[in-house]
Amino acid sequence: MRATLMYGAGDVRVEDVPDSRIKQPTDALVRITASCVCGSDLHPYHNMTSENGPARMGHEFIGIVEEAGSDVTTLNKGDLVVSPFAISDNVCEYCRANLQTSCSHHEAGFWDGIPEEGGQAEAIRVPLADGTLVKLPVAADSTLMPSLLTLSDVFGTGYHAAIAGGVNQHTTVTVIGDGAVGLLAVLSAKRLGAEQIILMGRHQARTDLGREFGATHIVPARGDDGIAQVRELTAGQGTHVVLEAVGHRPAYEQALGIVRRGGVISRVGVPQYEQAPIGMASLFRHNIRLAGGPAPVRAYIEELMPDILDGKIEPGKVFDVTTDLDGVPAGYKDMDDRKSLKVLVKP
Amino acid sequence: MRATLMYGAGDVRVEDVPDSRIKQPTDALVRITASCVCGSDLHPYHNMTSENGPARMGHEFIGIVEEAGSDVTTLNKGDLVVSPFAISDNVCEYCRANLQTSCSHHEAGFWDGIPEEGGQAEAIRVPLADGTLVKLPVAADSTLMPSLLTLSDVFGTGYHAAIAGGVNQHTTVTVIGDGAVGLLAVLSAKRLGAEQIILMGRHQARTDLGREFGATHIVPARGDDGIAQVRELTAGQGTHVVLEAVGHRPAYEQALGIVRRGGVISRVGVPQYEQAPIGMASLFRHNIRLAGGPAPVRAYIEELMPDILDGKIEPGKVFDVTTDLDGVPAGYKDMDDRKSLKVLVKP
Repeated sequence: MRATLMYGAGDVRVEDVPDSRIKQPTDALVRITASCVCGSDLHPYHNMTSENGPARMGHEFIGIVEEAGSDVTTLNKGDLVVSPFAISDNVCEYCRANLQTSCSHHEAGFWDGIPEEGGQAEAIRVPLADGTLVKLPVAADSTLMPSLLTLSDVFGTGYHAAIAGGVNQHTTVTVIGDGAVGLLAVLSAKRLGAEQIILMGRHQARTDLGREFGATHIVPARGDDGIAQVRELTAGQGTHVVLEAVGHRPAYEQALGIVRRGGVISRVGVPQYEQAPIGMASLFRHNIRLAGGPAPVRAYIEELMPDILDGKIEPGKVFDVTTDLDGVPAGYKDMDDRKSLKVLVKP
Repeated sequence: MRATLMYGAGDVRVEDVPDSRIKQPTDALVRITASCVCGSDLHPYHNMTSENGPARMGHEFIGIVEEAGSDVTTLNKGDLVVSPFAISDNVCEYCRANLQTSCSHHEAGFWDGIPEEGGQAEAIRVPLADGTLVKLPVAADSTLMPSLLTLSDVFGTGYHAAIAGGVNQHTTVTVIGDGAVGLLAVLSAKRLGAEQIILMGRHQARTDLGREFGATHIVPARGDDGIAQVRELTAGQGTHVVLEAVGHRPAYEQALGIVRRGGVISRVGVPQYEQAPIGMASLFRHNIRLAGGPAPVRAYIEELMPDILDGKIEPGKVFDVTTDLDGVPAGYKDMDDRKSLKVLVKP
């Protein structure tokens, strides 16, 4: 079968690899019908050293169950399923607390941590299939496919940012980042009732989509200028919640400048730093809270799916390009060049 | 009148200073009947340079209103009052949101930031008296005085740690620090229903009081050993909430090792650091939240006072020494030497 491998920074290839196959009775083998490239895939695309490669890529996919292991009870051959970016048993105490990204099962983890499998491929072995996969009540050729695919990561991640930040109808919100997660954080904040949603981004095609998703204000400036503009939009106070969907330290520092006293910075951009300011001059003095982490998207799929099925929301609008597997390397490059917002892959 | 001044690290003096007097119509002049030395006073006692001195000391006090400014409406001469460590108007949008430590009034702030006034003195000018002071329904010689005095800072601060950490009957709790705030964080966690409360401290007289306040386990070890012992007490999982009542960076790092996946570190020890780990390897990977800050104790006084008045709780047990003003310099030294837990001052 064919699959995507990253050999190092900037070096993505599609190659023949051994066919994925069931290894454990709790596995399912899934034939992938839709996958995509994630903004977080761009971090190794910038940083990965060749000693760490080649790595199988892709952690978002929809597919058809080709074979279910003998212990799989909820799935059958032919079922259309979506996979979260994290594998989980969905029954341990962490999963029951809706923290599937911290599932305590020894086979649990992120797709990105599984060396022999990846979503940007023709097929995939899914461990803990009963816990991980969620059935989709549509056909594989449904026009809803792009929106349903966002349930595997970017919509759930934007929604997690908003939930972890405590967004509701009484909170004002700033979203830092106009990538797919940032835009879907806007959609999520809107869904949760926020009336003022400031989107910080400088790419107009994206911020236009942000407006469509519910952003009330766009601030293209960054750093001190951006902070000043958000302060101006909020009578000098900043917003109750800042959703940080970038992951670089300047974005965190921008959040510190924007958040209101007593407010929350909710991070879902994978931090590309370890140390950062959290003392008296940053978080402590005004009881500013820090929240977020890898989104337990498994917890949100059933909640978010009905509005997609009903056509009420269309998170799939974040996909602006569709390609086949051969087009994946160019897809990485175009996303990195910000020519594409998010690339959908049909293997 | 006489008052306490710090001239630099280790140099505390009691001297004659100009009498405090009303300056604004919203001020009250309070004759101090009980005050104390705070664990946070020990930070400048270690670090203060002589260029920053002399500074008036003391931010916790009870006293009798000697004179009320012409715009003060809720207080009269002769009223016994307790003051939070922060001045606030108690009517702005931050105060109404129970964040009086971030009050937006231009006269608001911490007592420690007021150069000409301090609580370790015979009298004090209280700005925004209607907002700041709370009347006490007892006489100044009540035996409840030590416990009521804790409402000015240490009890409210311990309680804030627990509230900001979301402590309830379903959470396990670790408290780092066996000072007055840590011990009252234990009492607060108990009050909020936590069933497992692990107190990390190595001073037995204090941890004994911690047990009396509700600690179920004592861990005297620190660092990796301490972390391992807490893990052992929690089936390897850590506790849902860690209340950090120290303020030094090793205490924060200890909290990182102890907190359960998806849990909260709630800090009320004044951070003596600015940078610290918050990335993938510390907070982010398992959605660990960071909360806390200077306690809006004004918000908690009415809530906590009845149980003191009824004798149900006795937070004043944290005072193990009483002195007069002349004994204040020795009080600092004894607290710094950990000979005294907390020194009550009767001017």
